Amino acid sequence: MCEANAYLVENGQENLILESVDKVVPTDTEVYLQNIFGQQKTIKGRIKELLLVDHRIILERFTPQE
Amino acid sequence: MCEANAYLVENGQENLILESVDKVVPTDTEVYLQNIFGQQKTIKGRIKELLLVDHRIILERFTPQE
Repeated sequence: MCEANAYLVENGQENLILESVDKVVPTDTEVYLQNIFGQQKTIKGRIKELLLVDHRIILERFTPQE
Repeated sequence: MCEANAYLVENGQENLILESVDKVVPTDTEVYLQNIFGQQKTIKGRIKELLLVDHRIILERFTPQE
């Protein structure tokens, strides 16, 4: 299986927010995540980068100046 | 390996733009893609959705009204 783990970067640290993510749908202000177990999370922020071979989805908050 | 294929939706059709993508970095107006062979592409548009178990990255153009 090729799902990935989703991490949120806050204060320079990566915090795991959802494992085994299958589906990712970004909107203008949020990122919707759904994993292979049917768990769902919506995070205020955006995709920073995806590293698929490493199974990593990195999310970040919007910066204050935006 | 858990790379995915990147498709761009245009006129309702999905066109394959890069296979075996490892790294994806979105900016405000573009999406940078790099595959496991070192090939790189930058697409004007945004991520519509990711379906990782299906190995699919779906990109779309910004809609005209934006």
